Amino acid sequence: MLPRGRPRALGAAALLLLLLLLGFLLFGGDLGCERRKRGGRAGAPGCFPGPLMPRVPPDGRLRRAAALDGDPGADPGDHNRSDCGPPPPRPSKCELLHVAIVCAGHNSSRDVITLVKSMLFYRKNPLHLHLVTDAVARNILEMLFHTWMVPAVRVSFYNADELKSQVSWIPNKHYSGLYGLMKLVLPSALPTELAHVIVLDTDVTFASDISELWALFAHFSDTQAIGLVENQSDWYLGNLWKNHRPWPALGRGFNTGVILLRLDRLRQAGWEQMWRLTARRELLTLPATSLADQDIFNAVIKEHPGLVQPLPCVWNVQLSDHTLAERCYSAASDLKVIHWNSPKKLQVKNKHVEFFRNFYLTFLEYDGNLLRRELFGCPSQPPPGAEQLQQALSQLNEEDPCFEFRQQQLTVHRVHVTFLPHEPPPPRPHDVTLVAQLSMDRLQMLEALCRHWPGPMSLALYLTDAEAQQFLRFIEASPVLAARQDVAYHVVYREGPLYPVNQLRNVALAQALTPYVFLSDIDFLPAYSLYDYLRASIEQLGLGSQRKAALVVPAFETLHYRFSFPHSKVELLALLDVGALYTFRYHEWPRGHAPTDYARWREAQAPYRVQWAADYEPYVVVPRDCPRYDPRFVGFGWNKVAHIVELDAQEYELLVLPEAFTIHLPHAPSLDISRFRSSPTYRDCLQALKDEFHQDLSRHHGAAALKYLPALQQPQSPARD
Amino acid sequence: MLPRGRPRALGAAALLLLLLLLGFLLFGGDLGCERRKRGGRAGAPGCFPGPLMPRVPPDGRLRRAAALDGDPGADPGDHNRSDCGPPPPRPSKCELLHVAIVCAGHNSSRDVITLVKSMLFYRKNPLHLHLVTDAVARNILEMLFHTWMVPAVRVSFYNADELKSQVSWIPNKHYSGLYGLMKLVLPSALPTELAHVIVLDTDVTFASDISELWALFAHFSDTQAIGLVENQSDWYLGNLWKNHRPWPALGRGFNTGVILLRLDRLRQAGWEQMWRLTARRELLTLPATSLADQDIFNAVIKEHPGLVQPLPCVWNVQLSDHTLAERCYSAASDLKVIHWNSPKKLQVKNKHVEFFRNFYLTFLEYDGNLLRRELFGCPSQPPPGAEQLQQALSQLNEEDPCFEFRQQQLTVHRVHVTFLPHEPPPPRPHDVTLVAQLSMDRLQMLEALCRHWPGPMSLALYLTDAEAQQFLRFIEASPVLAARQDVAYHVVYREGPLYPVNQLRNVALAQALTPYVFLSDIDFLPAYSLYDYLRASIEQLGLGSQRKAALVVPAFETLHYRFSFPHSKVELLALLDVGALYTFRYHEWPRGHAPTDYARWREAQAPYRVQWAADYEPYVVVPRDCPRYDPRFVGFGWNKVAHIVELDAQEYELLVLPEAFTIHLPHAPSLDISRFRSSPTYRDCLQALKDEFHQDLSRHHGAAALKYLPALQQPQSPARD
Repeated sequence: MLPRGRPRALGAAALLLLLLLLGFLLFGGDLGCERRKRGGRAGAPGCFPGPLMPRVPPDGRLRRAAALDGDPGADPGDHNRSDCGPPPPRPSKCELLHVAIVCAGHNSSRDVITLVKSMLFYRKNPLHLHLVTDAVARNILEMLFHTWMVPAVRVSFYNADELKSQVSWIPNKHYSGLYGLMKLVLPSALPTELAHVIVLDTDVTFASDISELWALFAHFSDTQAIGLVENQSDWYLGNLWKNHRPWPALGRGFNTGVILLRLDRLRQAGWEQMWRLTARRELLTLPATSLADQDIFNAVIKEHPGLVQPLPCVWNVQLSDHTLAERCYSAASDLKVIHWNSPKKLQVKNKHVEFFRNFYLTFLEYDGNLLRRELFGCPSQPPPGAEQLQQALSQLNEEDPCFEFRQQQLTVHRVHVTFLPHEPPPPRPHDVTLVAQLSMDRLQMLEALCRHWPGPMSLALYLTDAEAQQFLRFIEASPVLAARQDVAYHVVYREGPLYPVNQLRNVALAQALTPYVFLSDIDFLPAYSLYDYLRASIEQLGLGSQRKAALVVPAFETLHYRFSFPHSKVELLALLDVGALYTFRYHEWPRGHAPTDYARWREAQAPYRVQWAADYEPYVVVPRDCPRYDPRFVGFGWNKVAHIVELDAQEYELLVLPEAFTIHLPHAPSLDISRFRSSPTYRDCLQALKDEFHQDLSRHHGAAALKYLPALQQPQSPARD
Repeated sequence: MLPRGRPRALGAAALLLLLLLLGFLLFGGDLGCERRKRGGRAGAPGCFPGPLMPRVPPDGRLRRAAALDGDPGADPGDHNRSDCGPPPPRPSKCELLHVAIVCAGHNSSRDVITLVKSMLFYRKNPLHLHLVTDAVARNILEMLFHTWMVPAVRVSFYNADELKSQVSWIPNKHYSGLYGLMKLVLPSALPTELAHVIVLDTDVTFASDISELWALFAHFSDTQAIGLVENQSDWYLGNLWKNHRPWPALGRGFNTGVILLRLDRLRQAGWEQMWRLTARRELLTLPATSLADQDIFNAVIKEHPGLVQPLPCVWNVQLSDHTLAERCYSAASDLKVIHWNSPKKLQVKNKHVEFFRNFYLTFLEYDGNLLRRELFGCPSQPPPGAEQLQQALSQLNEEDPCFEFRQQQLTVHRVHVTFLPHEPPPPRPHDVTLVAQLSMDRLQMLEALCRHWPGPMSLALYLTDAEAQQFLRFIEASPVLAARQDVAYHVVYREGPLYPVNQLRNVALAQALTPYVFLSDIDFLPAYSLYDYLRASIEQLGLGSQRKAALVVPAFETLHYRFSFPHSKVELLALLDVGALYTFRYHEWPRGHAPTDYARWREAQAPYRVQWAADYEPYVVVPRDCPRYDPRFVGFGWNKVAHIVELDAQEYELLVLPEAFTIHLPHAPSLDISRFRSSPTYRDCLQALKDEFHQDLSRHHGAAALKYLPALQQPQSPARD
């Protein structure tokens, strides 16, 4: 067969080559296709430069542009069109690709993460992200990437606030605000050694490998510096409504949601001067930019059309309000990047919006942990801490009955702090933040908690990526919760079988911004007056400055879901007397709160000191710089007890507040607790953790730690929550 | 620039073409590359036929094979190799691709769904799935695809049991059993008009568009009929251990996890005879197949090497125990199909297993609803029912305050019946199945329920795809649950904001296989003796055959998580008397169970008849063919009440059983109930649903429905669960 097949195929190939040559001579061949040919791909299907040229706009200068594009203005019946531009040779296997994104605020930070997830899902190259951020976004994204530990991803941050002055003189009506203009200053803001960069809006989603986009740099002529997709609406034609006066643009203009920038050439061409001159001149007759940077990019390009390399439409499918994108995507066999460039985002009206929304939701809800995949055959600097972590993990013994505990302790959870917009509380010397952690099954506590605690809160939520979206919708649907800007929600992404309760507490604690914290649990509702009372007590007692103390808030419980919450200590005592309330865990585990001395509390008029005793786990108010929880206690057991031991070892006074109280509401045992209550291994492992905890305690506190030894050697009570 | 650039580029292109021609004449060009050239892609990077030929196996016949392949036996440092085989021209935009899969049993059905999800994620063509299934898999997959409603996917089923006799004579030691051999009979089992098909094992995952694989059919010579990837272990070399005697194969042999079959050519070549002859002959000296169909495919190919077209290694990256796959994937820039061909599956030892596992988990946990994406520009027959559904949805008014209710009612949830292995109960004339529904937050009830109810159960679970996997692990971790083969779990996939409580009940009810059902709720634990007592009562009362009755099981509740469950009616009454138990909803909603007449029940020695009254919602035992729950009641409210109304309207007698009881355990209010308890719209919408329910009731029962009108017009009590 081999000898038979060869000559026939050879003949066919030769014929094809001849035809192609002929095609060239007859039709010319525009630059886009010709470059592709230089790349060794003559006659790629669908690339017919001459006869399929789109209608030429009045100034005639868009000609070259639309030929490379799957021109949204062309006959939608022409299927070849948007397939014109088959991938040029990809970047080499391990080439580092650079991406720049401007991002400010809480909501954009969430958007960026979805964009990055889609990019990472398809990427096959190492990436360097250049993030121009305000302080809020930097705080969020720095922690996120640090804890995400994705191999072969480097992240650099640039201070957006320092760049503000360069664009703040431009009046701008676009919803993206000042940050929307910042792409203009990237050539000077990014490192001078950086020559190529892909610039992305936060509201785009990848549906393909970004290296295919990077490869389009190869299409640039020697002087082109900006790769852009045509704008997929008639905005710049100025005919959308009466007296609509857009900024100048070539034909339909270009969309700047996805940009290939040759930074080197822009710097050389005096970009800084160029765009400022154009903007100043246009602003003499136009009141402001409507579409931020995009108006200015278009005005510059209109003046210097040689700068622009048009990109195929599939690289920026724009779902704006007046979109013509269907002309692009219905002909294309492949969408590459979807751009939600309507202020309505996913609510935009579009008959195919369900398709695009599903695509977007894929990455919104995608488990980001799964993107911690290495790139085979691309050696790269591991993320900070990754090597030590790998080493520690590799030293674990899978046969160890406590393997799951060990592995869970070592797990680095992705952390997204201030997942929702958050206003830090104004600095006040005795302010207290309520600190707690929860998972999805306790969301319904939040409204009640907000009613009981009018002060700042820092809450860690243990969620999957999909649950984080449910959580978002839950907050948006609740007027009570949506109104509270002083509650900071920090999402810690789920990974592993055991609940990392103390890691969660530490995340919430680390993000508290007031000088004091009330270390609570999510199933407790504090007395309505507690927030005010605590601040007054802190001031009166001179906590922190004069006294190293932990203020104990006595804990009670009700067994009924519905009960009338007491408005005062008097009311509480009455309920206690009729058996409608109990002291916390009175039936199952009185030791946990016995040292609080409820009998004394009944009568107390002033704070009183109590002594630590084994198994004591009160809810306390302490300065923010208090000891952290011990993250080795995962699952359920000894997690709070160990923290109180540490406070006592560090000589915190334990002071019970006479008017403070908090009440536990009933709930069914959690899944985790049910799973482990019956497991004999569980208690053995917990004992092992306790032994190790005591070893560490002895190391830090010497002989003083002996005091805790009997408590640590007691057999563990049945696991409680 | 345009005029300047053109001639230069033209010259370059011409030069390139000349070089290419020269290359042809100098190096020959093997068939693989040459075919690709015919497709118009001369000189694709990495395709160097001559000098990079791998080492030739003893019989010299693998030569052509490995040239197309990213030969796992070749020098792993050679990166070009596995890139040899850039995609040939894809199938045309809307070409229908055919895929055949053999699938039997509960576990393989789950595997197939993950495979299909990965395939659908990347596909851009209409697909026709040809599923060869046993009765279990057919039951599962038919329902799944029917409710999945994926556009441009057609599914045909073939009865595996009818094919058994054709392969059952072959002794086989492989874990896949008889079904593992069934791929051999596909040419005769599939429709004669089907000429090309891709055959897949259930344990493969796609990492790319299947049309790229389909496109490899274009590489086949005129006589080749089977496309296969080389086996990525030394198994067939026979040197893995002493006295290891594998079946004959060409060199390393081929793996049959992914096959391109030219069915037309195999039929023409007398495949039926061919493989039987070979198998019979080899079985004279070999005791059995070790690797099922794969041994026989290899033996046939060894004899008829002209049949096989070797495929690039990336199309079947085999993670078996002795895998050499790293040679393939570390050089490749792109993995296409991953094959978990070790009996250990995800637990296989491999230093990159974490990478592959993450990839697999992506699709395992992927929300299958998101794959209901249409293919733009490919008109296709909509799935059955999809058009009516679309129409009904399009008639909804988004401004309607009850829009969410309407939309939820119309939602078709994906249903995966018998998600876990299940043994149907032996047919017994008075047997009763406990029917209930739950979501993730009630999993911890299952163990206790199993202890209380030793009979068959049919449970519908409302879960996301990711939660379904957590559920699976939960069951596997529980000896109590793992031991029960008579509990059928049906997963209904979550979609929409409201809990489709009655749709779930109907799924569980439809899957009950005994003549009677006990319609319970998941928060209830029945008396230990209830299962036996119900069967005896059914027999005594002559339920079904002689009497149309619903047997009422009186409901009680405890407010404590831990309490000593009464072993008899006497014990129960004692607990009731001391206030440790109450009749169900005694405090909040006594009307719901008042007609049961607890005072009479205390004294009753025999079943007694009670009359329906407004808001009555007892737990009842009825024949399996009882009326279904009304699916319009989504969320929380009136869902059981409406069912009892329907039973009464259909003249079911309500008979209270004197020794039966069931007890509700406490739990916190669910998220859904909290969300809507405060919503004023909620009650209005519920009233609208009730009005419509009554209209339907009148239509069916005429004047008799008037009886229920006052009950339906009552204001709704606070939403309860």
